[in-house]
Amino acid sequence: MIQKIDGGVTSAKGFKAASCEAGIKYQNRRDMAMVFAEVPCAVAGTFTSNRVKAAPVQWDMKIVQAGESVRAVVVNTGIANAGTGAEGLRLCEETAKSAAEVLGISPCEVLVGSTGVIGPQVPLDRIRAGIRTMAGALSNSREAGALAARGIMTTDTVTKEAAVTFELPGANGRNPVTVTLGGMSKGSGMIHPNMCTMLAYLTTDCAIVPDLLREAVRAAVTDTFNMITVDGDTSTNDTLLVLSSALAGNAPIQEKGESYDLFLEALTQVCRSLAIQMARDGEGATHLIETRVTGADTKEHARILAKSVVGSSLVKAMIYGRDANCGRVLCALGYAGVDFDPAGITIHMSGEAGTVCFYRDGCVQVFDEDKALEILSERDVHLLCDMGMGAEEATAWGCDLTYDYVKINGDYRT
Amino acid sequence: MIQKIDGGVTSAKGFKAASCEAGIKYQNRRDMAMVFAEVPCAVAGTFTSNRVKAAPVQWDMKIVQAGESVRAVVVNTGIANAGTGAEGLRLCEETAKSAAEVLGISPCEVLVGSTGVIGPQVPLDRIRAGIRTMAGALSNSREAGALAARGIMTTDTVTKEAAVTFELPGANGRNPVTVTLGGMSKGSGMIHPNMCTMLAYLTTDCAIVPDLLREAVRAAVTDTFNMITVDGDTSTNDTLLVLSSALAGNAPIQEKGESYDLFLEALTQVCRSLAIQMARDGEGATHLIETRVTGADTKEHARILAKSVVGSSLVKAMIYGRDANCGRVLCALGYAGVDFDPAGITIHMSGEAGTVCFYRDGCVQVFDEDKALEILSERDVHLLCDMGMGAEEATAWGCDLTYDYVKINGDYRT
Repeated sequence: MIQKIDGGVTSAKGFKAASCEAGIKYQNRRDMAMVFAEVPCAVAGTFTSNRVKAAPVQWDMKIVQAGESVRAVVVNTGIANAGTGAEGLRLCEETAKSAAEVLGISPCEVLVGSTGVIGPQVPLDRIRAGIRTMAGALSNSREAGALAARGIMTTDTVTKEAAVTFELPGANGRNPVTVTLGGMSKGSGMIHPNMCTMLAYLTTDCAIVPDLLREAVRAAVTDTFNMITVDGDTSTNDTLLVLSSALAGNAPIQEKGESYDLFLEALTQVCRSLAIQMARDGEGATHLIETRVTGADTKEHARILAKSVVGSSLVKAMIYGRDANCGRVLCALGYAGVDFDPAGITIHMSGEAGTVCFYRDGCVQVFDEDKALEILSERDVHLLCDMGMGAEEATAWGCDLTYDYVKINGDYRT
Repeated sequence: MIQKIDGGVTSAKGFKAASCEAGIKYQNRRDMAMVFAEVPCAVAGTFTSNRVKAAPVQWDMKIVQAGESVRAVVVNTGIANAGTGAEGLRLCEETAKSAAEVLGISPCEVLVGSTGVIGPQVPLDRIRAGIRTMAGALSNSREAGALAARGIMTTDTVTKEAAVTFELPGANGRNPVTVTLGGMSKGSGMIHPNMCTMLAYLTTDCAIVPDLLREAVRAAVTDTFNMITVDGDTSTNDTLLVLSSALAGNAPIQEKGESYDLFLEALTQVCRSLAIQMARDGEGATHLIETRVTGADTKEHARILAKSVVGSSLVKAMIYGRDANCGRVLCALGYAGVDFDPAGITIHMSGEAGTVCFYRDGCVQVFDEDKALEILSERDVHLLCDMGMGAEEATAWGCDLTYDYVKINGDYRT
């Protein structure tokens, strides 16, 4: 039994967080966050597939691939530290050194993250001052976690947090113990994760061997963060990290089985919650669009078809305009690059107001336009596409395309 | 020597055109067009790669693949005749029969085309009335060609036409003769051609064997229509047709050589002109974005990289907002799926006002913001990306993402 709790990055045992106003680029708002682990943690991560990788992504990849334990994550917003050459890499190193000194750990135990404008160099003096401020404010309180989630926001309008608890057998045959997994993420524009998403930091006190932690992360990300899109642009900075303190006292998960399955399910739930929060808060968004594809011949085809629909500019614009132009959905399935028989598919749109059938037996259907408008007036719109070919399914999430998306990105730097 | 002329679909010998207000969906505007060939014509075509193919696409594909000669093309706008099942196919057949009867030709010599809303059935009585009206108005005049180009428009704001002449050796060893190639196209939204583009109809009086005509069409389309994007949505109706009347009197082109090369170059020029006109008139567009990728290791990589940049929502929004956010271009190259060394590439933006360097030696550059703003204030913006890897290059065209794109597509059906 997995239980949702009100929590975030400080919910699991052993993790503290802090954030501050460092003045990196934004003024009068939190623009740095720090997560600190009281004990060395196993870490797994996935990173952007963009060929241009921001300096902090390069830094983190090296640490995660080395497989050593880590103790801290330091994040800044405002400037992405991408396209910044050797100086950008030096900034990561200096950030890690600075945090290591203040926290009494080693620089290679410090992960870094940045998000914001590509190009400018990050001001090191402000980073250092921010680290000093945050080190003095670290706390494992609920509030500290929530403020850290605020500290990693850019164009986000709300914080994104999720946490769950579940029971696992205790170590050395003792009674079951409660294990906690929680996290935070940010992301609103330049969201089309491929391998992982924007910035997402998860912590758990579950004892699990690094190999299985990595495997679980890969599996969870495929059906969650990799199934959302805001604008089709895969960022240079996408980073997801999961830190495990192993303080829950559970019998360490060393092989696949019931405990691993439960951990994977918990991880998938938290990742899905954070991913949907990001899609719903897409830049300028007024709707969450959920597309569920069923009856596909393969899982991969189901994923591709679902992502094609939520990624279509025309589907996104029609949902913003509350115009039930079902041909847009049909068209987006058609150009996904997956073979299917158009006569065999069925398309529905549903919401709390009910369901309308868009397409069946090779023909666009006549539907109740009033009900369609009611559905499109809700915040979350569900598109259901049955391919009539097999038993595989997948769900993707996106948001509508609005004037505000254009406005936000027409003048992002200022 | 290829000479541009003021012309279109009626410029080549043997072709007449007409258009009319048939009231298919729009009122008080031309919404049907017809092209009629005085002699049987060889035809080559490319069609949408969308798995959902509109009924007229299915009809035309059958005729083009049969390899028989054709005499006429009948096009309606307002309703796409897609997602219309068996009734939609019957509409194509009845349209062809009706045109064949009025024009005194066979139904299998009649190609059809539709563009507009997906879903509704096309009213056959209005199609028939339109055909009768147009048959009586067919003319080979310049004006008739221009009005046909107007008759195929939907959300287009301007007509798209292009024509050229060139000289080829005369038949049976006679003196060189003038050959003409011209055409018209439409397309503004749902533009992301793959295999071909929206609706494009070209005519020529060049005598060329069908196999070489087909080969030339494939080659010309790859670097022209397939290199434009407005919104990444590949339509269900994309159709390009080239009709050849062979009336120029040139020695028929039966093998590759100088004459074929000249024909291919002329065809490429006309296709490129029409393609750029479509990108520039993209729905809501205020800028044409041209991205030239040089120094790529393969031609295909150059094409993919160039298309990734013009297809990026963030690049499109930044150009609309006249915000020289060079990181967007770097990012779009990075996620194109092509391997390259970020330290080896150089990115410039240029216009009539001059050139600014965005990126070099692994770093975003400091550039003259005033000059960048001047360049971004021009209608056509040129992005130049040198990959520093090889000698291959490609150019892609797109347009900016504006409030009006969202507006047009938020309420397309009404």
